[in-house]
Amino acid sequence: MTRPSVRSDRAPRIEPFRVMQILQRARQLQAQGKDIVHMENGEPDFPSPPGVIAAGRTALDAGHTHYTAANGLPELRAASASSYGDDAVVDASRILVSPGASGALQLVMAVLLNAGDGIMMADPGYPCNRHIASLFNADIQLVPVDETTGYQLTREHVEAHWQANTRAVLVASPSNPTGTLIDPAELADINEFVVSRDARLIVDEIYHGLIYDEDVPSAAAISEDIFIINSFSKYYGMTGWRIGWLVMPVEYAEAVSRLAQNMFLAAPTLSQHAALAALDEATEPELLRRKDIFRKRRGYLLPALEDAGFIVRTRPSGAFYIYADCTAYGQDSDALCEQLLEQAGVAVTPGSDFGHHDSSRYVRFSYANTLDKLEQGVRRMKNYLENRS
Amino acid sequence: MTRPSVRSDRAPRIEPFRVMQILQRARQLQAQGKDIVHMENGEPDFPSPPGVIAAGRTALDAGHTHYTAANGLPELRAASASSYGDDAVVDASRILVSPGASGALQLVMAVLLNAGDGIMMADPGYPCNRHIASLFNADIQLVPVDETTGYQLTREHVEAHWQANTRAVLVASPSNPTGTLIDPAELADINEFVVSRDARLIVDEIYHGLIYDEDVPSAAAISEDIFIINSFSKYYGMTGWRIGWLVMPVEYAEAVSRLAQNMFLAAPTLSQHAALAALDEATEPELLRRKDIFRKRRGYLLPALEDAGFIVRTRPSGAFYIYADCTAYGQDSDALCEQLLEQAGVAVTPGSDFGHHDSSRYVRFSYANTLDKLEQGVRRMKNYLENRS
Repeated sequence: MTRPSVRSDRAPRIEPFRVMQILQRARQLQAQGKDIVHMENGEPDFPSPPGVIAAGRTALDAGHTHYTAANGLPELRAASASSYGDDAVVDASRILVSPGASGALQLVMAVLLNAGDGIMMADPGYPCNRHIASLFNADIQLVPVDETTGYQLTREHVEAHWQANTRAVLVASPSNPTGTLIDPAELADINEFVVSRDARLIVDEIYHGLIYDEDVPSAAAISEDIFIINSFSKYYGMTGWRIGWLVMPVEYAEAVSRLAQNMFLAAPTLSQHAALAALDEATEPELLRRKDIFRKRRGYLLPALEDAGFIVRTRPSGAFYIYADCTAYGQDSDALCEQLLEQAGVAVTPGSDFGHHDSSRYVRFSYANTLDKLEQGVRRMKNYLENRS
Repeated sequence: MTRPSVRSDRAPRIEPFRVMQILQRARQLQAQGKDIVHMENGEPDFPSPPGVIAAGRTALDAGHTHYTAANGLPELRAASASSYGDDAVVDASRILVSPGASGALQLVMAVLLNAGDGIMMADPGYPCNRHIASLFNADIQLVPVDETTGYQLTREHVEAHWQANTRAVLVASPSNPTGTLIDPAELADINEFVVSRDARLIVDEIYHGLIYDEDVPSAAAISEDIFIINSFSKYYGMTGWRIGWLVMPVEYAEAVSRLAQNMFLAAPTLSQHAALAALDEATEPELLRRKDIFRKRRGYLLPALEDAGFIVRTRPSGAFYIYADCTAYGQDSDALCEQLLEQAGVAVTPGSDFGHHDSSRYVRFSYANTLDKLEQGVRRMKNYLENRS
């Protein structure tokens, strides 16, 4: 294929996700009749909750197929604000309903960053975040993190890596790929420093509904200066609906709404109506039931992986991922992932999808699959790794 | 409200649409019991076609609530490619299904433009286009156009306004706000020049299905080097579903797909399934019926506006807009639009929403409303304008 003669510098720099190549190869193998256990998934294996589906159907019957206001249906903004419940009082004026968390993150970066402005984030981290920052020609300031801080940024990191052009710091709690949290006190410390430097903190809470052991308040409880990104994709099981929301400092609401109007017009209308049902208390028992299933899977997978020779240095508190050191089986997780797929029929994601820091030593295991499948996957991996020449 | 202390330069530069203020004020007036005729609409007044709604319902029942591939459902890519029918053979590998035409335009700019690269477009034009370009810190090169070229760019314009940093030229045919077309021969001439300068032509064809008098081939018939943006919003009546597509030169397909994955993950899944029905031949009679209704409305509104003293300098061939000179009633269309809303109860959009060139002389009338309502709107405007002091 010809290399395009006209293209931006960012285009070739945006790496394909390894996981997509793995998924493609897994499908090829499946088409050849091979059975593959999927432990690379980035979305819940459940369909959307029945109440959400029913609300989508009702909205269709009612003919809700036109645009909504750019910042979303007022009742959904109000319900999203109320979802902070005991954590914090959030005014609906601070909420914008976005086309997925991706859309929310684009908006925050658009309102904060000029070309060349710095945005700090942890390595490893969710790769789309740095690629979205590249759209705005931002200076992406990756900070290597390890198990000593639960793979999270600390105030110490932020101070040590601060640069004159840093205007934003992005953290995710729980994190993808590590499932680890930032302690609220640490987060408050980070925010205090960031604000003192005339910059802003962005907290990705798209996995916040999936924290298993403890009650951790939202960053909304810490400060009204924090941008918080959330999504109906993971806890609410609505990935394909492309719907999320943003909590912002109130003084940004008008500018961000204008940006949204120009960038997206509005989030998908049906998805907004369905999301209302996701936040309805009638849906909560089903969401909690699913959360409990994820918790049980983690309860199985964590010791099973350790038993298979993988090292998990920080116990994951949330999301549906386990980030494990695989150096017992070599120093190249890309190669290991390929072998696990080709030889053992198990699809997992190499650390290289999430950054550069020590990434070749790590693999991300997803437990967005049934317990049966996870057990089968572990058996296959153990069998392959114990017997390979 | 406090001015945010940390914000990008682009944030304050993105102007609110006047039409949104008008819409908001119109709603206020309606809440006070006043009757308002809407001639400012940017979306069809029809709900989505019954076949589309039915397909949405079927997709919900089938549980299609997970992500699709980043470039869209293969069958929808194939159907979009086939939709060029007699115009051109388009391979499905050149199609990406996007979250609305807005998403497609973001992708094209992301793959083409570095910070400071120039993108040329007509003034007047659709305002979101220049605001999306500002996300990428592009140099927006507005070319004033008038009735002598049907408010469209010509090769002569493009050559005359070319700058060393110009990397892309964006045209819309039919145009919003003018409803005018670019002649295919002129478009071919523009493309030839643009490609010779190592740049790329982008053609916005989101109103291409709504051309009333003639059969005009898609830009896909002209060259495989052209980026073509299309949408299910206007002709297919699917605004709230946020779904469109992009035809691109094949050598960009892989990079654009990677960008889409990072920026959006994928277009909304239900919308993709519903869009398949929009392209199904069973839906075509309904789409043609609606198109005929739009044609009849134009047939009424164009002479009626002229009779009311507005001057239409180039007959609109498509979309559902008429861009009319209102200088018979003063030199300030912002003020006129405010008066028409407050005094006559008719909401229309001032030229200032679409650019700077001569914009105070123009008003955009939308005929995305019933014939009855359009007649009522015209009567009210005539009555007000003839009798005002």
